[in-house]
Amino acid sequence: MKRFVIGMLVSNQSGVLTRISGMFSRRGFNIDSLTVGVTENPDLSRMTVTMTGSEYERDQMLKQLGKLFDVKEIKEIETSTAINRELAIVKVKANPADRLEVLTVANTFGAKVVDLSAETICFEKTGESNKLDSFVELLKPYGIVEMCRTGLVAIDRGSTTLKK
Amino acid sequence: MKRFVIGMLVSNQSGVLTRISGMFSRRGFNIDSLTVGVTENPDLSRMTVTMTGSEYERDQMLKQLGKLFDVKEIKEIETSTAINRELAIVKVKANPADRLEVLTVANTFGAKVVDLSAETICFEKTGESNKLDSFVELLKPYGIVEMCRTGLVAIDRGSTTLKK
Repeated sequence: MKRFVIGMLVSNQSGVLTRISGMFSRRGFNIDSLTVGVTENPDLSRMTVTMTGSEYERDQMLKQLGKLFDVKEIKEIETSTAINRELAIVKVKANPADRLEVLTVANTFGAKVVDLSAETICFEKTGESNKLDSFVELLKPYGIVEMCRTGLVAIDRGSTTLKK
Repeated sequence: MKRFVIGMLVSNQSGVLTRISGMFSRRGFNIDSLTVGVTENPDLSRMTVTMTGSEYERDQMLKQLGKLFDVKEIKEIETSTAINRELAIVKVKANPADRLEVLTVANTFGAKVVDLSAETICFEKTGESNKLDSFVELLKPYGIVEMCRTGLVAIDRGSTTLKK
């Protein structure tokens, strides 16, 4: 079992997401994360899906998804030769006495303070997924009030693109 | 027609995404962006959906989605009292002669260089969606090779949370 990242260019239309996520759920594959956002072309959205499975399962998904009319380009993105980033917003309990300690942790990780209230601090942090995991782990003892992560986006380094 | 942001806590299980996106597509509503990521609780994922529609359509979606067994918490997130962020990775054409000019634009927007090749530069930039739109707009004349956006994540300011 390995984690795979699949990048796709898909039609920007109602129903596309249902057809794509249906491909995974019909096979009982759980999607670890999924992001879909606009691209430089208004007719196309770019989707990044991370899944855990065997190499056989990955090959099956690439083949089946590639057959969908809505999927214009599809490729496995090798994380070792790509830029992998995720964004997290984390709201942590921090009364004035704890504040300095929490801020020190955040500073070490290069996180940005985006909100401050009497009892909470809210951070924005981008990085590779495992970096975000460590950051969240270190904040846990203070009490995480809520958090929101975007899921992974990945783009090949250099001039290689998703298009063949 | 307005843009609405819906925040949800959903079961972290295969099929949930299909059931939720199916709710939108059956009604012909297009999802502008969707993100789903892990939370502090391994059984729950947090989903942020942005949709464009009337207030009636928004109310319908909140009611219908709220009835789904997989949806544990659901709330409209008022963007005016929330932290709204998106992450973009943008790869731009930049031969050595253009490089300085492109870097100046990126610096002004506080974007971070994450990769550099002989012909391309790759930036990472977080911000509100319209800020990212302006950034991308300014880079267009140089030639956008590819880009990947996560879609919006939003979290209430202060100690208010998604949980009632």
